[in-house]
Amino acid sequence: MTPVRVIVWGENRHEKIEEHVRKIYPDGMHETIADGIRENLGDGAVVRTVTLDDPEHGLTEEVLQDTDVLVWWGHAAHGDVADEVVERVHRHVLSGMGLIVLHSGHWSKIFMKLMGTSCTLRWRSEHDRELIWTVDPTHPIAEGVPHPLEIEEDEMYGEFFDIPAPDELIFISTFSGGEAFRSGCTFHRGHGKIFYFRPGDQDYPTYHHKDVRRVIANGVKWARTVRPERAAPVLLRYETGEFFKGAGYTGPLG
Amino acid sequence: MTPVRVIVWGENRHEKIEEHVRKIYPDGMHETIADGIRENLGDGAVVRTVTLDDPEHGLTEEVLQDTDVLVWWGHAAHGDVADEVVERVHRHVLSGMGLIVLHSGHWSKIFMKLMGTSCTLRWRSEHDRELIWTVDPTHPIAEGVPHPLEIEEDEMYGEFFDIPAPDELIFISTFSGGEAFRSGCTFHRGHGKIFYFRPGDQDYPTYHHKDVRRVIANGVKWARTVRPERAAPVLLRYETGEFFKGAGYTGPLG
Amino acid sequence: MTPVRVIVWGENRHEKIEEHVRKIYPDGMHETIADGIRENLGDGAVVRTVTLDDPEHGLTEEVLQDTDVLVWWGHAAHGDVADEVVERVHRHVLSGMGLIVLHSGHWSKIFMKLMGTSCTLRWRSEHDRELIWTVDPTHPIAEGVPHPLEIEEDEMYGEFFDIPAPDELIFISTFSGGEAFRSGCTFHRGHGKIFYFRPGDQDYPTYHHKDVRRVIANGVKWARTVRPERAAPVLLRYETGEFFKGAGYTGPLG
Amino acid sequence: MTPVRVIVWGENRHEKIEEHVRKIYPDGMHETIADGIRENLGDGAVVRTVTLDDPEHGLTEEVLQDTDVLVWWGHAAHGDVADEVVERVHRHVLSGMGLIVLHSGHWSKIFMKLMGTSCTLRWRSEHDRELIWTVDPTHPIAEGVPHPLEIEEDEMYGEFFDIPAPDELIFISTFSGGEAFRSGCTFHRGHGKIFYFRPGDQDYPTYHHKDVRRVIANGVKWARTVRPERAAPVLLRYETGEFFKGAGYTGPLG
Repeated sequence: MTPVRVIVWGENRHEKIEEHVRKIYPDGMHETIADGIRENLGDGAVVRTVTLDDPEHGLTEEVLQDTDVLVWWGHAAHGDVADEVVERVHRHVLSGMGLIVLHSGHWSKIFMKLMGTSCTLRWRSEHDRELIWTVDPTHPIAEGVPHPLEIEEDEMYGEFFDIPAPDELIFISTFSGGEAFRSGCTFHRGHGKIFYFRPGDQDYPTYHHKDVRRVIANGVKWARTVRPERAAPVLLRYETGEFFKGAGYTGPLG
Repeated sequence: MTPVRVIVWGENRHEKIEEHVRKIYPDGMHETIADGIRENLGDGAVVRTVTLDDPEHGLTEEVLQDTDVLVWWGHAAHGDVADEVVERVHRHVLSGMGLIVLHSGHWSKIFMKLMGTSCTLRWRSEHDRELIWTVDPTHPIAEGVPHPLEIEEDEMYGEFFDIPAPDELIFISTFSGGEAFRSGCTFHRGHGKIFYFRPGDQDYPTYHHKDVRRVIANGVKWARTVRPERAAPVLLRYETGEFFKGAGYTGPLG
Repeated sequence: MTPVRVIVWGENRHEKIEEHVRKIYPDGMHETIADGIRENLGDGAVVRTVTLDDPEHGLTEEVLQDTDVLVWWGHAAHGDVADEVVERVHRHVLSGMGLIVLHSGHWSKIFMKLMGTSCTLRWRSEHDRELIWTVDPTHPIAEGVPHPLEIEEDEMYGEFFDIPAPDELIFISTFSGGEAFRSGCTFHRGHGKIFYFRPGDQDYPTYHHKDVRRVIANGVKWARTVRPERAAPVLLRYETGEFFKGAGYTGPLG
Repeated sequence: MTPVRVIVWGENRHEKIEEHVRKIYPDGMHETIADGIRENLGDGAVVRTVTLDDPEHGLTEEVLQDTDVLVWWGHAAHGDVADEVVERVHRHVLSGMGLIVLHSGHWSKIFMKLMGTSCTLRWRSEHDRELIWTVDPTHPIAEGVPHPLEIEEDEMYGEFFDIPAPDELIFISTFSGGEAFRSGCTFHRGHGKIFYFRPGDQDYPTYHHKDVRRVIANGVKWARTVRPERAAPVLLRYETGEFFKGAGYTGPLG
């Protein structure tokens, strides 16, 4: 199998503005996330990074066509992502590109568009300990992940998390404050596979955590499509007895 | 329990333009659909109709606030529905209003926004016989529905239907041409319950069919929320040890 | 609608053997559970109790035929339940009787038979505080339930809970020790609806808790079938074009 | 990755008793099924066959420990399978062995035990044409499978199929007589992955069909566990703050 082609998209705002974030992620959060994937997948992946400030946010048609799986980290600047780029990414997901959405990406335009809900939740950034429990132990994304996965301190996200019921619920987090969160969820949209994974905040070294990196890398492997072509589902008319050749749509009125 | 307050939304285009549709639905398709709900729920429902040509398509803030369940039929004029109205309906669904989407409503703006997918399918309007098989026989929407439910002739919709995997798959249709379709599906979005039901086309008397009417009425009963308030989920910050009083969001940067 | 006919089945062992349990549940745990249902459903329910020591454990064919929903509490004596009675209850569940399984009932013969798994979990009885978070806020079983539902002290159950992925995940529990548990789950088997609800142990006054009682009562209402007849699915042969009258099975060989 | 170790279990009764079956499957159905897996997986699989008449039906503890995925075909002699062997297979599935159940295996003891339901359905053996539609196009089991997959003639199975709602519904069949069937379903039980696939009967050459063989081979690849050890979930007690070392169960009474 050829290596999976991965783009890690980073908003790259906190790192520029906030000294304490830059200290944890001196090359930007996206570089640390990318390193974690390389560390786990080795020759099995070619991982690049792009950021919000790149032309077209680094997500041109050409780039997306060469991308098997897109990993998304954003937080402070969701509103700055151009609608046109969101539409393009959406089209590529429905056409078969995998998508990994991390943490605060729950409020990104692309995730909300794919979910159809408010994607709201409860939160607190007060150094809670997080424990991540596996409830789907045969899922490939849970491979090699400790039960529980322990994160010494992290931001808290709690239920109710307003998402559609996930196709597969893999992980549930608890926090030292007592909250629970569905923190590892898969969704299928069109020909695309989506994995949402909760941990990680700019204020914590979460993306240096060995097991968090493992989960993200597992997600990348899982989200790569088995379909040979990048193509979205289309509406077609089929004659009686003809199952393979459909005709394009010509409008609702004869 | 107070009667469920229902609005049937009708696009009301084919009936105006096409003589053969007007013959089947002389008062408009929405009136026939509304009658079917009244026929089944009696005093248990107050059913009104509005159409695309009403001011704000008949879906003002006031109307929606007084609506428990909205039933949607559209086909030829999806593009004429104002985005602002779609946003408003979307907000009400996330806040707890039930939504029944019929047939060609699969391509309505509101359904696509709630699903996040292309909602495409295969189709043919050639008088196929449709058989609707119940695969979730304990579901309230299947109550009193024959197995199979037989429709002498109807438009064909076939897989692949590009929707998220439904929360509950209640009905599967087959057509005399051999196609299959997931024709009765539920979804939850925010605090709203959604039921998609396939049968029905302007060219066929489907909404006069006793059992089709029964299913739609069952759907209306099911989609009414048990929550006392019309309110969408919101993102709130909670202090450690405080579980009930959250603080509003003040932005991503301290 | 006629009142729902409920049987609360109690193992009634701890109450007899252990003084500290008898103090919390002087009439037996089953009576406290039954009172909680009556308290919530009033005239809407007729609730009776039977116990392990009754002839046929109180679950004769006649009793089960007159039961809409069976509520099950067992712990120390799962092995003493006769296989014949388990088969009978199983047949009634597949035929449409609702079943509510509480707490340690996860290891009852009937629940294991319906699940097909080991139903194992992690546990500790050390006075953990339990918080129960609603992740399916439109589900009828969550109606009127605080978010979170707080239980001052209770036994801990933690993941991995070896059950099939539930059809609906309604509640997730966290414990002060940090564990998580899928504590409110629905399953459908045959024509029967099943609700598993975690809280409750003989050592704690859990079944006196107002909100726990509310959830159990909601579960009872939900688990009652809408099907008119008590009948299990059967294997039948259908001629081509005949959809309603099937012939009984006569064996695999012509 | 090492080759997946597959056992195809064949009942091997029809082939012995019925001349017309022996003509279609001269080496036994199990050999044809095994060949189809070899044809698709090549060096990626080591495939062996065992039958009902082997000692312990060929499914000794040693054999199962060396088996990654078990493929099951049975029909006329479900009752002849020893309960002890069924218990053993069940334990291995919960411990991580994959299981592919074909066609009439819906009524095998092992499948019914894993499902907890009656596994009944409607049927007819009258040379219906079967069309198999993919409703989960990104699933690895659907890789390279035509949409629809066409089987010129086969036995009909129709809904209602009394199984738990599958974790993933991949395929839906229609038959020329008009029936529908959920024909490709996955389930997870314990640490084991299960795939039920409908096509195939002793009276038809279904297991010589190129695409049917592809699906079974895809199922085998999918059902192989990613977990390193063959072990069933167990019930363990954990002290507060101790998440990895649990203590064995010592009974319900202190």
